[in-house]
Amino acid sequence: MKFLRFGPIGEEKPGIIDQDGVMRDLSAHVDDIAGANLSEDSLSALGQIDPTTLPKVPENSRIGACVGDIGKVICIGLNYSDHAAESGMAVPPEPVIFFKATSAVCGPYDNIEIPRGSNETDWEVELAVIIGKHTKYVDEADAMDHVAGYAIMNDVSEREFQQRRSGQWVKGKSCDTFGPLGPWLVTKDEIADPQNLGMRLSVNGHQYQNGSTATMVYKVPFLISYLSQFMSLQPGDVISTGTPPGVGMGQDPKVYLKPGDVVELSIDGLGDQRQNVEAG
Amino acid sequence: MKFLRFGPIGEEKPGIIDQDGVMRDLSAHVDDIAGANLSEDSLSALGQIDPTTLPKVPENSRIGACVGDIGKVICIGLNYSDHAAESGMAVPPEPVIFFKATSAVCGPYDNIEIPRGSNETDWEVELAVIIGKHTKYVDEADAMDHVAGYAIMNDVSEREFQQRRSGQWVKGKSCDTFGPLGPWLVTKDEIADPQNLGMRLSVNGHQYQNGSTATMVYKVPFLISYLSQFMSLQPGDVISTGTPPGVGMGQDPKVYLKPGDVVELSIDGLGDQRQNVEAG
Repeated sequence: MKFLRFGPIGEEKPGIIDQDGVMRDLSAHVDDIAGANLSEDSLSALGQIDPTTLPKVPENSRIGACVGDIGKVICIGLNYSDHAAESGMAVPPEPVIFFKATSAVCGPYDNIEIPRGSNETDWEVELAVIIGKHTKYVDEADAMDHVAGYAIMNDVSEREFQQRRSGQWVKGKSCDTFGPLGPWLVTKDEIADPQNLGMRLSVNGHQYQNGSTATMVYKVPFLISYLSQFMSLQPGDVISTGTPPGVGMGQDPKVYLKPGDVVELSIDGLGDQRQNVEAG
Repeated sequence: MKFLRFGPIGEEKPGIIDQDGVMRDLSAHVDDIAGANLSEDSLSALGQIDPTTLPKVPENSRIGACVGDIGKVICIGLNYSDHAAESGMAVPPEPVIFFKATSAVCGPYDNIEIPRGSNETDWEVELAVIIGKHTKYVDEADAMDHVAGYAIMNDVSEREFQQRRSGQWVKGKSCDTFGPLGPWLVTKDEIADPQNLGMRLSVNGHQYQNGSTATMVYKVPFLISYLSQFMSLQPGDVISTGTPPGVGMGQDPKVYLKPGDVVELSIDGLGDQRQNVEAG
């Protein structure tokens, strides 16, 4: 199943994609794609509804982030060996974790806002894992039971804020609009192998990133188990699992986003995103 | 005014302290001490109610974190010069920011849980600032208009996880129960000068921290303005402003928490906290 959220910012309603790819309004059956509604039982129950009986989503509706009421966005740093190399950093001996502010999350087609004072706003296509149930001290063997599904995340990053403004990466990861998420939450049953998904990102039609989740250093089950040793995870938490090579910082010369640019992302089975870049 | 939240974890109700220090149940007037209810208008309206007309909070009620539905907990690192020195780090040229998971926040008298594998669980008494309205690119002169009030935060920290487990402090700051917050949200009108508050922390009756917010490097209005350049702040966001000297890591030999320990904290005008330490 593919779930989505549509409507104005802060007023999104739940939706589902039918077999013809048409967006249908689920709001008569569930209040949001969020929290306890992400449990396996809840998602299965929604899957029993014949989507063609549901009203179509109004045309030209804005698409919001595919999950609401997110408790935390946990990002994994340097989780593709080639990306670590282009960043001039070593592959870490265990995962690097940082948070992105939940206030940075936005819809997959919303504009990316360049923050004031920014000269180095960059892109990162990432596989996001959406947690479906409470997770604490979970073994790697059981970790996938805690996944509701997957989505695309653009882990937008301001490199100067991240690396040269006095410590801790969060400063360059949390600006408003730095977390386009969606378009869909694709349930895990639809993704046969999350470690074999092609992923691409282009800016103004030039393809910069063309990788695969196959080259992730720390894989999804390991990451969930690992994170759960340091903090509990709740339904609706998002893990953004790192980016393959091809970010702007890794180009020679470096390339950063500017107002008017158009960023397009896709991951196999998870749809695509498109953001216009504007001044903040 | 002093607001609080009482009841079982996840089911807290709003309350207020009357002129005799008695906890009163506000749930007939407001659903939670959270979000839009933290606006100046909403808090003033609640202040017009005669608390003695409200039911008393049942005796032996658990006290929860003083703010609900927290969007983010933003912590400031090394914000007291003496604490930077005891940590063996320089005062940063601009504030160091990191996040604590919102899932780490707990009540002021809840137990602190030592995470599995931890040998270095440490304490930090901090002044927490509770945001009352949307904040983005705000000037320092206007910053205090965005504050709803203050509370005590114990920024519990696992030093090995924070410093020697492969990058980014968040890993040692986000375990469950690592954020006792409260007992009260004290509205800003009750705190004449937030930069002149004595703050103390003891473990098993031995006082380790005895400082004042007077020695903060980056003061509250500056921090709010600074943060708002990197991310927007929403009502109910919490800024934990750093700790004075006297953490366990700064002792010779170092002292860390162990099951059975009792941690007690207080800040002038903001009440006190008390946590029993238990194994996770």
